[in-house]
Amino acid sequence: MTFPKNLEESIESKFSKLASKKNKQRKKILSLGLGEPDFNTPKEVLEESYNAMKLGKTKYSSPMGIIKLRKKLSEHLKVNNKLKAKTNNIIITSGAKMSLTLALSAVLKKNMSILNISPCYPSYVPQILISEYQARIINFDLDKNDFSINFKKLKALIVKHKVKVMLINFPNNPTGMTLDKRSREKIVELIYRHKIILISDEVYDKLVFNDKEHISIGSYKKIANQVITINSFSKSFAMTGWRIGYMVANNEIIDKACKIQQHINTNVPEFIQYGALKALSIPPTHLKKYNARLLNNFRYLKSKIEMSANFPISDSKGGLFAFVDISKDGRTSDTFCRDLINDTNVACTPGIFFGKNWDYFIRISLAINEKSFMKATNLLLNFINKTRKNI
Amino acid sequence: MTFPKNLEESIESKFSKLASKKNKQRKKILSLGLGEPDFNTPKEVLEESYNAMKLGKTKYSSPMGIIKLRKKLSEHLKVNNKLKAKTNNIIITSGAKMSLTLALSAVLKKNMSILNISPCYPSYVPQILISEYQARIINFDLDKNDFSINFKKLKALIVKHKVKVMLINFPNNPTGMTLDKRSREKIVELIYRHKIILISDEVYDKLVFNDKEHISIGSYKKIANQVITINSFSKSFAMTGWRIGYMVANNEIIDKACKIQQHINTNVPEFIQYGALKALSIPPTHLKKYNARLLNNFRYLKSKIEMSANFPISDSKGGLFAFVDISKDGRTSDTFCRDLINDTNVACTPGIFFGKNWDYFIRISLAINEKSFMKATNLLLNFINKTRKNI
Repeated sequence: MTFPKNLEESIESKFSKLASKKNKQRKKILSLGLGEPDFNTPKEVLEESYNAMKLGKTKYSSPMGIIKLRKKLSEHLKVNNKLKAKTNNIIITSGAKMSLTLALSAVLKKNMSILNISPCYPSYVPQILISEYQARIINFDLDKNDFSINFKKLKALIVKHKVKVMLINFPNNPTGMTLDKRSREKIVELIYRHKIILISDEVYDKLVFNDKEHISIGSYKKIANQVITINSFSKSFAMTGWRIGYMVANNEIIDKACKIQQHINTNVPEFIQYGALKALSIPPTHLKKYNARLLNNFRYLKSKIEMSANFPISDSKGGLFAFVDISKDGRTSDTFCRDLINDTNVACTPGIFFGKNWDYFIRISLAINEKSFMKATNLLLNFINKTRKNI
Repeated sequence: MTFPKNLEESIESKFSKLASKKNKQRKKILSLGLGEPDFNTPKEVLEESYNAMKLGKTKYSSPMGIIKLRKKLSEHLKVNNKLKAKTNNIIITSGAKMSLTLALSAVLKKNMSILNISPCYPSYVPQILISEYQARIINFDLDKNDFSINFKKLKALIVKHKVKVMLINFPNNPTGMTLDKRSREKIVELIYRHKIILISDEVYDKLVFNDKEHISIGSYKKIANQVITINSFSKSFAMTGWRIGYMVANNEIIDKACKIQQHINTNVPEFIQYGALKALSIPPTHLKKYNARLLNNFRYLKSKIEMSANFPISDSKGGLFAFVDISKDGRTSDTFCRDLINDTNVACTPGIFFGKNWDYFIRISLAINEKSFMKATNLLLNFINKTRKNI
C-alpha cells in the first residue's frame, strides 16, 4: 500500500510508552487508561492450553479455526446473543483487531464510502486505511449530551455519500453507550434499505450493566446476510494478550477473510483455541460480579465528578469506560490529561484520540479495583477544583 | 483493498483440504507435501511458555515484542548469521508470513515493480497483492537445470522494469538451492547499484546440509540498510503452529511495520515469546541430526528416481525439499500429482503451485521419517515406471 502519512499510533502503544517513561522516572502511575480487565485469565484456560500443547497441538492447522471451537461458538452465540451462525460462517482470528482488518479488506474498495461512528476506538481509522488506503471515511458524531444516534442526520449522510459500509461498536468504547431495541431496529431498517454492509464490533457484549441482555444486530433475519459480527475473548475472559477473536459473516466474506488469513497468518495457534474453547464452558458468575464492580466504579465517579465538580457524565450502560465532558474546564483533552498525569500521576485518555470533534472529553477506564479507583477519582476531583480555569 | 480476483489459496490450506477428503475416504495418505518438521516442539519451550502464562504474561504488550527476546535474537543473529541487528531493528510477528506482509506493506507503492524469484513459496504473490494490489510483479526464473541465477538476465530485467523491491528466499523453497559466496556478492552489488530494497526470507537458515554456515545478505555492511531479513522459529524448532517469526530492518521500515502491527494484531502473545526465548538457548544438536536425516532422505530419493527412473534431480543444499523435473513423464504437474495420490496415496506438491513456468516439476518434502520416506519413494518410483507415457 502507499503508506498513509496520517497513520496514528495505537492507544495501547501510546500508553505503553507513557508507562515506560514514568517507570524510568520511578513514578507509579494510577492508570485509568487501558481497556483491559484487571483480573487474570481463568486458571482452567491456562491448563487446557498447556494440555493441548502437550498433545502436540503445535502444528499448522486450518485458517478457519478448529471445528470444535466454531461449533461451540455457534451454540454460544445463539443462546447469548440470539445470533444464528453456522460453523462455516465463523472464522477464528488473532483478536478482534485482525477480524476487523480482514472484514474491512474483504468489503472495501477504492473510493468506497465507509461510515464511521464517532467517537470510536482509535484503531478503526488506521484499520480502514491499512485495508484500503483509498477508501473515503465519513465520520458521524454521536450526540454530545447523551451519546445517542440522530437517525435523521445519519440517513442524510448515508444518502449524500452513497455509503456502502458502516462500522459500529456497542457497548461502545469510549462512551459506554449501547443500542436499545428501538435503535437496533432503526439501524436494521437503514442498512436494509440502503444495502449497507454493517461491521458490528461487539467485543464488550458481556459487559452490560443492570443485567440487560446483549442482542446482536446480525440476529435480525432480514439483514443477517449484510452483517459482519466481530467479537473476542479478550474482555470477557481477561485474554487480551492471547490474541484470539472471531468474525461471523456470510459465505462470500468469510471466504475472502479466510484467503487473506491463510497468507498472512496461517492460523491462530491451536493450543490457544483450545484455551478459548475451555473459556466458553466456564459459568459466567465472574462476569456478574465484574459488571457490578464496573457499575459501582461508574456511580462513584459520577457522584464525585458530576456532583462536586459539575462536569456532566452521561450514563455508561456497558463496556469498560466512562466518557466525561470536560468542556467546563476550558483546556483541550490533551493538555488536560498531560497536566493531570504530571500533577497527580493519574492517567486518563484524551478524547481527541477518539475523533477530532471530541477534544473536550476524557475517557476513564472503570476496570481497576475499587480502592484504587476511588483514590484516582478523588485525585482527579482535587485536580479539577484546583486548576480549572473557566468556571 | 479491491480484492484480487486471482488470489490463490495457500499451500497449507490446499493440503489440509486434501487430507480431510482422504480421511473421509478412510485412506491414510503418505504425505511428502507440507513444509513442516516432523519432530515435536522441544519440551523446554512448552514448559517456559506455560510458566509465563502462570506469571500473568497474558496481557497486552509491546507491538515490537518483548525486549528480552529481541536482545537474545540480536546476539544470536550476530553469532549464527553474521548479521548485526540492534534490538530496535527487530520486530516480533505472528510467523514469517506476517513479517513478509508487514515488510511488503511498508515498502510497496502503487505501480511499483517488485522482482520475485521463481519458483517461489506460493504465498509470496498473494502477500504482495494483499499488501499492494496495484504493484507490478516481475517474475524471474531460476535456471531449470541447476536452479542457479543468471545474473546478466537478472540485471537486464531490473533495469527494464525499474525494479525497486526484490524478494528472495534461501535456502530456497521449493528448489533446495542456496546462495554461495559469489552469488551473495553479486546480489549485494546489484541491489547496491540499483538502490533496491531486498526482502530476504531466510526461514530455512538452520537447515543447511554438509555443515555449511548460513550467512545473511544483510550482513554486508554496504547494503545492510537496504535489506529486510525475515526469519521464524517454525522450521528450526518445530514451532510452525506457534506463529512466531521476526523481521530485521532499518528504522524507517520497522516503524512502519510496528504501526501496522499495533492496529491489526497488537502483539504476539507474550507467553509464546517466552517460549521462543527458551528455544534459542537449546543447544543445536537436534539440528545436526535432523539435517543429516534430511540429506539422507534426499540421497535416497536421488539414487532411486534419478538413477532408476532417469528423472534429473538437482542437488538440494538446504531446506526441507527436493524439486524434481518430471518433464520426461509428459504429464503436467497437477495431473501427475493427482494420479499419484489416487494410485498410491502418496501426496507431493505440483510445481505449478510455485510459478506458471514450473509445471513440469514436483516438490517433495524430505521432512518425514526415513522408513516412511523410503516407502513413499518406492511407491513413487513404481508409479513413474508403470504409468509414464513419454519415455
